[in-house]
This record gives sequence, structure tokens and C-alpha cells, in this order.
Amino acid sequence: MIKKQLFTPGPTEVPPETLAATARPVLHHRKEGFKKLYFSAVSNLGKIFRSSGEIFILATSGTGAMETAVCNFTSSGDKALVVVSGKFGKRWKELLNTFGVEAEVLNYEWGRPADPGDIKEKLEGRKDIKAVFTTLVETSTGTLHPIEKIASVVKESPAALIVDAVSGLGCDVIETDKWEIDVVVSGSQKALMTPPGLGFICVNKKAKELYEKNERKNYYWDLKKASGRHKNNQVPYTPAVNLIAGLEQSVKMINKEGIENVWERHKMFSEATRAAMDKLGIEVFSESPARGLTAIKIPEGKSFIIKELKEKFGIVVAGGQAHLKGKIARLGHMGYADKSDILKLITALGVIVEDFSGLSAALKAANEIFKKYAK
Amino acid sequence: MIKKQLFTPGPTEVPPETLAATARPVLHHRKEGFKKLYFSAVSNLGKIFRSSGEIFILATSGTGAMETAVCNFTSSGDKALVVVSGKFGKRWKELLNTFGVEAEVLNYEWGRPADPGDIKEKLEGRKDIKAVFTTLVETSTGTLHPIEKIASVVKESPAALIVDAVSGLGCDVIETDKWEIDVVVSGSQKALMTPPGLGFICVNKKAKELYEKNERKNYYWDLKKASGRHKNNQVPYTPAVNLIAGLEQSVKMINKEGIENVWERHKMFSEATRAAMDKLGIEVFSESPARGLTAIKIPEGKSFIIKELKEKFGIVVAGGQAHLKGKIARLGHMGYADKSDILKLITALGVIVEDFSGLSAALKAANEIFKKYAK
Repeated sequence: MIKKQLFTPGPTEVPPETLAATARPVLHHRKEGFKKLYFSAVSNLGKIFRSSGEIFILATSGTGAMETAVCNFTSSGDKALVVVSGKFGKRWKELLNTFGVEAEVLNYEWGRPADPGDIKEKLEGRKDIKAVFTTLVETSTGTLHPIEKIASVVKESPAALIVDAVSGLGCDVIETDKWEIDVVVSGSQKALMTPPGLGFICVNKKAKELYEKNERKNYYWDLKKASGRHKNNQVPYTPAVNLIAGLEQSVKMINKEGIENVWERHKMFSEATRAAMDKLGIEVFSESPARGLTAIKIPEGKSFIIKELKEKFGIVVAGGQAHLKGKIARLGHMGYADKSDILKLITALGVIVEDFSGLSAALKAANEIFKKYAK
Repeated sequence: MIKKQLFTPGPTEVPPETLAATARPVLHHRKEGFKKLYFSAVSNLGKIFRSSGEIFILATSGTGAMETAVCNFTSSGDKALVVVSGKFGKRWKELLNTFGVEAEVLNYEWGRPADPGDIKEKLEGRKDIKAVFTTLVETSTGTLHPIEKIASVVKESPAALIVDAVSGLGCDVIETDKWEIDVVVSGSQKALMTPPGLGFICVNKKAKELYEKNERKNYYWDLKKASGRHKNNQVPYTPAVNLIAGLEQSVKMINKEGIENVWERHKMFSEATRAAMDKLGIEVFSESPARGLTAIKIPEGKSFIIKELKEKFGIVVAGGQAHLKGKIARLGHMGYADKSDILKLITALGVIVEDFSGLSAALKAANEIFKKYAK
């Protein structure tokens, strides 16, 4: 017997309560039972997005939610600024290109966070840039971008700020309303502890007119149409009812713990993991590590760690993408995870590299972090 | 206690085995376990589509699968012919308009099937029509279109044939390869006995070059990208893993029964329901009734039937859409349904209208049909 456990940065482990909720009998999507469920899911999501704006739940993946943002907040021929420092920033750029938007790219080395000063400079005196696209957490490198500061510079320009928080929402701090972010997109399968298949788009109250006035014609992604239905706790096309039932369970659990406590818990996981890696002599890859995952450099001659974690201990972590393939491992600790899980991950890694004195120090270091947070 | 049961034409009841499969721990979508599951789901779907072509599974609703077809098989400025005889034919038209395709409409009164002769006439000498869009079953009226005959006339022209079989696949006969249909789209939540959230697109071998050569730029819906991943039992973006686990269970059950037997079972349900309605003095709405649902005219003064079926007996049926609201009821008998379910539905309806002599005759008539099929 090997018990498999996902330590991947999406999809992630899902609580049994949520899996059970997805297995409830199907509700018809035009009846009262579904409307109540939808209202509860949306209300609870609002507390996680920290927004009193509109939140749409779509039957799609995170990429579909990103496409929804591009299609509803830009028109063909528009100009946009896009931060690229990994695979998901690149995805914004590819989407913008696909839909005829001229994308000016601010490139950063993979693993480095965006510099709000660069964005400020790029936007200076520019009235022609319709929107700035960035990610909250670049999952491909485990890097957190300074969204609060980025928001404060974008606010000074006429451009809208559109943030991909597929990775990050529910573990790293994001304050959609307070920071005045116009649009935040996300998905079900990461810190929100729900199986994949749902995409979310949160539109700040002030940003509603941006899609209402936008000229591109959309159908499946059309937020104007969705907005009309939304008021009545409905969606335009058959929703993924059972996934929404699961989501509703998970977001209630998150809000029961309290989103600020959830953020703190992830901060503790992230600090404990990094402290332990340090003692194991393993370098962290990112210059600005996110709370939900830790990307580590695979030590020289230790390319077997990803495979052995899985085969020996059932621990599934992710490798690097694109040019980082074989060079980094990404350890997810987001969503349905507790301190024992962090210890399990550290221990397995220490055992696999057979560094038992390092492991002893690593576990002590992790425990020090736990104690700090317990105070 | 009231046990609710969906007799709606989508979403439909899902077998407990399938609900349980959706509640299994989440698989990571880039690992072997998922690839095996995906391969099994796709192979089993092939036997239901009756096609050896490519089958794509998308995280979306049926409408998203329709949008995928429009986006991959037409370019802006193309011309298309579209059959409209209800809400879903109209949806093709709206999608075509949204994506810049000039749609010539063949309108039929709601409830009437398309006439292949009209399509033949429309296509005669026309080399400029890129595709013909139609539905297998118009769910809004419970009407089956004669797709085999339509395919035989479209075949004589350069136009491709694109069929919405969201309603119909897995209950009404469709022979994608044999009838030479280029593209068939469908969804998880009807006769395929799976919760909503998955869209399918089946591309006949001969039609592959149609999307490969097509010029429109797509991202989330891009079949060129999906096709490359597909060979390796992968999809481009995070798939709805747990829904695919449920689907795999349901399509295996369908193929265990045998798709031809499943078609026969639905034919029996449909005939038995119609025979019973006749004895209850209730008229069938459609001139060409589908096998998976029966649309009935709501008898004069009996507008309470939909509400009472639900409140008294937990039986959820659908009302009419658009101008048929209040005029028809749509009784779904597709997917996870057996003879007892049909008797339950007939009985409840007879009891609600308090026509007990009619009910006696109705049940006898239904049983005669069952006996005919048992031979």
C-alpha cells in the first residue's frame, strides 16, 4: 500500500467533506436548490476575494477564466502591458496576441518579482494602455508579485489592473477592493480545495462599466449576459452543479477558519519549508517566495528526488516547466494542508537524500517556525 | 420525506457508481493515472459517438463545445447554413453571428423536424457555404432531426456538417463515421449520465484537416493545440479530473449494456410514454419525437402539473422555453432510467390529473410496449 498525496501546486488535495459534496445527487440548475447553493458559493468566494464586486463562476479551467478577462476587458486593436516572468505571465501574453491586443511585455527573469517602479515608468503619460495584466503568484517559479504596490501605480494611470490569482487566491494576501484591483481571475483546484473544472472572475464594483462598455463580441465568456443572470443566482449555460456543491463546502470551511488565519497558516508553511530546506542544504529558487508553494533547486546529482518521493512515499510534487525542467522541483503546500503534512514532506525529502543530520536540523527549524506562529 | 428525481432533459440522474467515482481523490493531470483514465474515457466515448475520429473532452458546458466547433471550423466572413427550429438551433445562429459568420437560416416551426430536401435546395450550386449547423435533438421541443438524410444531402456539397448532439447522444441513433458527419458536439449531463461540466467534440477523420487549415485564432478552444496533446492522452489546460472520472464510469456502463441496446431502451421509453399520454388524453407536442424526452402539451386548465409533480412526488420535469413557456412540459427519460421510472412518471401524472380510468389504460398501453421490446 502506498497512500498517494498531492503536494503539487494544483490540483491539490481536496477535503473528504468536499469530495462527498460533489457526489451528492445532481440538482437541476434552474430550481431553487441550486440558486441557494450558488448564492452561498458566491457569497463565500467574495470573502476570499475580499470584494463586494460581482463574482462569476464558470464551467472552465483557470485558463478559461483568463480568456474571459481578455475577451471582456479588451477589444481587438487595444494596447496592454503584461508582466512576464514565467509560464503564466506568458499565457497572458499569448492570450492577448490571440485576441488581437498589442501586448507590451515587461520581462523579468524567471523567479524574480515584478518591479512596480518599472510599471510606473511604462505607464507614465500613456493614455493608450487599456490594461495591465499580471499574476499574483507565478506558479511556474513559486514567485509572488507585489500586487499591492503594482495596484498603487496602475491606479495613477487610466489602465485597468487585471490579476491572475489562479495560484495565490486563498493563500497569499490579496485585497481586491482595498487595493482597487479591477479584475481578479482564479480557479477551483488550488488553495480553494476543490477539484478542477471551475474558473472564477471577480470584477470590482468600479470595473463593472469596463466590460459593459467593451466592444468585443463574446458568447460563452460574455459577462454582460452572465451579469443579468447573476442577479437571480443563475448562470447563462448549464453550470457544473456538482463541482459548485464541492466549492461551496470548501469555501465555507475556509471562511470558518477565517481568511486572515488561512493566509497566516500558509505563511507559516512557507517559512517552515524554507527554513527546513536551508538546513538540508537545498536552495529556494524564487527571490520572492509565494506562500502556497516552494520552488527548490534540485541539488547537483539528486535528480531522482521527484521520482523517489512518489515511488517510495506516495508524495506527488511538480517538476519545473520549460527551461526549468529538471532544474527545480515545486513543493505545493496550499489549501487542504496542515503542519503534519509539512513535516511529512520535509522528512521524506531528508530521508531520500539520506541527510539525517540535516534532517534533524530541518525538522527543528520547521518546529521553531510552528512555535513562533503558535504564540 | 420526498425523494427528488430528475426527469428533466438535462441535467439528468447520475448513477451512484458515477457519483462515487467523481468523489475519488483528485489525480494530478500530468501523471500516468490520469492518462489511463483519459484514454479509457475517450475510447469509450468513441463507441458512443460511433467514430474512430478524434474526441476532445473540454472543461466546459455543451454551449462551450458548440463555441469550440464554431471557432475551429469557421473563420470570420464565412457563410454557413443553420437549421433553426428551437432554442438550440437559435444558439448556433447566435454563436455564428457573434463570431462573424454570415448565417443563412432555415427556419422551421418549433416542434417540426428539418426537411433534408430544403437543405439540398439551399446547397445546390453553392460553393460558398462552409458548413451546415444543425441539432440532432432540439431539446426545447423534444424533436429529432433526420440527421442521416441531412448528412446524405450535405455530402453532395462542399459544406461540412456540424451537429449539436448535446441532447441525443446516447439515446437517439447517431452514426458519426457511417453517415459521414464531420463534427459532432455533446456534453456530459444528459444521456451520458454524468454531472454537468464536460463538453465533447468528435471530429471525423476526414474532417481533421478542416480545423487544421482553419484560419481563426483560438486559445482555450484551440483544437490544433489540443490535438497535439491528445495523442499523449493529455489536454492543454487543467482538465476537470473528477468529472472525467465520473464520465469514465458512466461510459463504461453504457458500453457494457451496448450502445445499440441503449438506443433500443430509449426507443421503448419514448414509445411507452407516448402511448400512455395518448390514453391520458394528453397530446405530444413534437411531430418527430426524440427518444430521450417527450414534450407534451399542457392540457387546458391543468397548468399545475409541473409544480404538483415536484411538490407531491419529487418528480422534477422541465417546462417550455421562450414562447412555449406555460404551454408544454418536457418529460425527460434519458440516461440512467429504467422501466420502473417510466411507470412512476406516468402514474404520478395520472394521479395528479385524477384521471384514474385513463391511468389504467395508460399503464396497460405502456406495458404493451414493454412486452413488445421484451420479445
